[in-house]
Amino acid sequence: MELTINQIAAILQGEVEGNGLEKVKTIGKIQDAENGAITFLANPKYENFIYSSKASAVIVKKDFIPSKAIRTTLIKVEDPYSSFTRLLEEYDKITSYSKVGVEEPSFISTNVVAGENIYRGAFSYIGSNVKIGKNVKIYPHVYIGDNVTVGNSCIFYSGVKIYAETIIGNNCIIHSGTVIGSDGFGFAPQEDGTYKKIPQLGNVVIRDNVEIGANTVIDCATLGSTIIDTGVKLDNLVQIAHNVEIGINTVIASQSGISGSTKFGKNCVVAGQVGVVGHVEIGDRVTLAAKTGLAKSVKKEGSVKFGYPAMDHKEYLKCHAIFRNLPELRERVNELEKKVLNLPAN
Amino acid sequence: MELTINQIAAILQGEVEGNGLEKVKTIGKIQDAENGAITFLANPKYENFIYSSKASAVIVKKDFIPSKAIRTTLIKVEDPYSSFTRLLEEYDKITSYSKVGVEEPSFISTNVVAGENIYRGAFSYIGSNVKIGKNVKIYPHVYIGDNVTVGNSCIFYSGVKIYAETIIGNNCIIHSGTVIGSDGFGFAPQEDGTYKKIPQLGNVVIRDNVEIGANTVIDCATLGSTIIDTGVKLDNLVQIAHNVEIGINTVIASQSGISGSTKFGKNCVVAGQVGVVGHVEIGDRVTLAAKTGLAKSVKKEGSVKFGYPAMDHKEYLKCHAIFRNLPELRERVNELEKKVLNLPAN
Amino acid sequence: MELTINQIAAILQGEVEGNGLEKVKTIGKIQDAENGAITFLANPKYENFIYSSKASAVIVKKDFIPSKAIRTTLIKVEDPYSSFTRLLEEYDKITSYSKVGVEEPSFISTNVVAGENIYRGAFSYIGSNVKIGKNVKIYPHVYIGDNVTVGNSCIFYSGVKIYAETIIGNNCIIHSGTVIGSDGFGFAPQEDGTYKKIPQLGNVVIRDNVEIGANTVIDCATLGSTIIDTGVKLDNLVQIAHNVEIGINTVIASQSGISGSTKFGKNCVVAGQVGVVGHVEIGDRVTLAAKTGLAKSVKKEGSVKFGYPAMDHKEYLKCHAIFRNLPELRERVNELEKKVLNLPAN
Repeated sequence: MELTINQIAAILQGEVEGNGLEKVKTIGKIQDAENGAITFLANPKYENFIYSSKASAVIVKKDFIPSKAIRTTLIKVEDPYSSFTRLLEEYDKITSYSKVGVEEPSFISTNVVAGENIYRGAFSYIGSNVKIGKNVKIYPHVYIGDNVTVGNSCIFYSGVKIYAETIIGNNCIIHSGTVIGSDGFGFAPQEDGTYKKIPQLGNVVIRDNVEIGANTVIDCATLGSTIIDTGVKLDNLVQIAHNVEIGINTVIASQSGISGSTKFGKNCVVAGQVGVVGHVEIGDRVTLAAKTGLAKSVKKEGSVKFGYPAMDHKEYLKCHAIFRNLPELRERVNELEKKVLNLPAN
Repeated sequence: MELTINQIAAILQGEVEGNGLEKVKTIGKIQDAENGAITFLANPKYENFIYSSKASAVIVKKDFIPSKAIRTTLIKVEDPYSSFTRLLEEYDKITSYSKVGVEEPSFISTNVVAGENIYRGAFSYIGSNVKIGKNVKIYPHVYIGDNVTVGNSCIFYSGVKIYAETIIGNNCIIHSGTVIGSDGFGFAPQEDGTYKKIPQLGNVVIRDNVEIGANTVIDCATLGSTIIDTGVKLDNLVQIAHNVEIGINTVIASQSGISGSTKFGKNCVVAGQVGVVGHVEIGDRVTLAAKTGLAKSVKKEGSVKFGYPAMDHKEYLKCHAIFRNLPELRERVNELEKKVLNLPAN
Repeated sequence: MELTINQIAAILQGEVEGNGLEKVKTIGKIQDAENGAITFLANPKYENFIYSSKASAVIVKKDFIPSKAIRTTLIKVEDPYSSFTRLLEEYDKITSYSKVGVEEPSFISTNVVAGENIYRGAFSYIGSNVKIGKNVKIYPHVYIGDNVTVGNSCIFYSGVKIYAETIIGNNCIIHSGTVIGSDGFGFAPQEDGTYKKIPQLGNVVIRDNVEIGANTVIDCATLGSTIIDTGVKLDNLVQIAHNVEIGINTVIASQSGISGSTKFGKNCVVAGQVGVVGHVEIGDRVTLAAKTGLAKSVKKEGSVKFGYPAMDHKEYLKCHAIFRNLPELRERVNELEKKVLNLPAN
């Protein structure tokens, strides 16, 4: 980012008070913004910071009048917080999609079709028969196997690995080190104690508006497709096994793992370090609390589960409250036994 | 895959009924196989699908006689399921090992010995004094450090990182992003609260027929070797610490972690998200249920452990069944106290 | 390593007994050291091994006198164990920092400043405006984004990915596949059930003497910095979310995850597979036992927590001891009920 304060004010339809020609290079919090940064003041509790701030510009409410001397330039708007958020989004879009063109050496195989406005970083690899939409950003060290299809406006950060036959929709962001389409963990036990590999010949299908964190793994299906549906968000270090289906707008936090052939409904929320067994079904809007181990289907919409083996969230908390006091409960049983022993014989 | 139905029938020693000259390009399930696909019908429950199927070919039992009009070509065999499985295996072998030759730019250092029928993908890196057998497939962005030895018929998918001095046997498959031979987590606490690195100078030895999933990490030994024995299968995102030994045919599911110097026997089964403490010994055929935390040795063959700290699997389930009803148990104690209080004084 | 025994003795200020001209190439344990290896004898219990050892050299105590015939060359020192440790450290330093120069093809963008004695491996990528100190080792397939700053004597092993704007101090070691600076997991839920990305515009700051294992992920801050302070050691497959701060000399073991905006004090110890909720504060010298799930702040210095939801370590063990015997406790309640029922009516 390198914009004058006047240019930013124009984007935000705000009014400048101070030196509008100064250039802004970065974005910060009001407590620690440095010279060259822009920040905002929404909560009056933070007003004091504005008088000592080194920020070049502060977005403030239309009716803000400084009660002391002030060095920073002001941009006055209706709603400073939402203006600041809009600025962040604009800035993010500009920086994330700014790379264009081809860096060499990069590798592109035969029969590849790619849209306009593409970035192919150095050491990126694109296999045969790959189709890529427009405005796609392929960072260095990305691997795209044969016959992969990618929609428009996707970003694959450095070191993303996409196995052959994968299909990816539009507006998908995949972070560094994530692997899409590796073989599912399928082995048939043999009589001599060895295991025979069950071929994993399916693929992964990722629909539109999906974001996937870093070093996550999504295995291909044995046959058919592992499916990550529209609007799904996966965090870092998540495991999605073969033939899993994750429903629309479901969110899965870091280090959670979903075992083979399990199907999630829409708008579920899976917290961190959760494990879900294979071959079960999860309904819509189900929440799994952190570290839950789910071993059964949960079909009821809106269920909240916790613990391992998972229980209804509130029930689990009740049981755990007693668990925390088990020494006391045992003591009460000890006391009862003494008293009952001392009672006159029947 | 691009074979005619006649060619496939010849491999399976089956009989063709219909157009044997049509080409088959993919493999599917009978419910959703498309034109160009081959599938199978083993379970009579699925017979209805065959009449509406768009599949180009269906493998059926020798004595199958359609009860309605049928468009698809049939391949009649003794046992459709095992024929289909054989076809998958053949197909898998052909596609997995199909890449041959060197893509440029790739990097190969001095004094490297490599067998015939190798694939070295673009941007793959091979260090000094590396020995590689025949029929090895090294995908793009693979890193093989100095002095590494690799047997025959291994596949390293894109982005596998193998540190110097590692030894890998025959027929090993390693998926994308997996790291072999990184430094063990060894630090000596100093008096001033800092930590001093304990040099990790050993290596990793992987024997024959091992398959390792994606983004897994196996650390090198402090001295000596971390050992992954013959036939072991590791899933994605598994952690194997320094000086661990995993016995023959042991299987470890995703996101499990084995701490330093722990030794597993043969044919153990470790489910997902299990943690095992360091410096313990696990006997043969031991099973650790999902999310188990094992803090002690388990030497008895065939043990099944669950929970954390781990208990005998059945015992844990009994205890957990009472845990789920702790509010009721406490209520019973409350009632008892009331009754005993109301009893006539002794 | 290729030193004569005489050269090693000079480093260790020891005295040679035997053939000091023999060359040593590797380091081993006394039980299994091979010809060409050096090892040590500190514990008299192991003395027997020295008579059958194939090692070329053994470091022994000054006053050691063999009681039988001996083939190996001796290096006599004050303290064999600490001499051996020093030798390991020297050897480690030499091998870890031995690579120098540039392998081609590698990529370096405009306006990069780099110190002397650098290694840039083949297929390494360095973005614009990057500043790198001296004696830094950048292995193949490393990605360093724009505007990154790196201090002196850092090692980035093959496949490390460092996003733009990251700042790294001196003497940091980062292992293969680790990702620094990926977007935090921040999404604002919308009324229609979709999620809107919250831009992640901050960075990661890593101070001096930090070591990070393989396939770990550290997300950038939403605004400001995610901070890994001096002397921190992170193991493999660790998750550090946006805006987290890890205090000086804190150690985090494999597969643990720290959620957004949580702050750790100094000298904490986090065992494996621990999860910590977001927005909490952990004091100095706090220990979290393996698999703990921490959902609250722990401000008291030196606290030890265990279980999920986490409890005081000793309390948890007491409760768990009763949990293990819940069937017996329930049986006692059953017996009490029978007895009380049989008592004469009040």
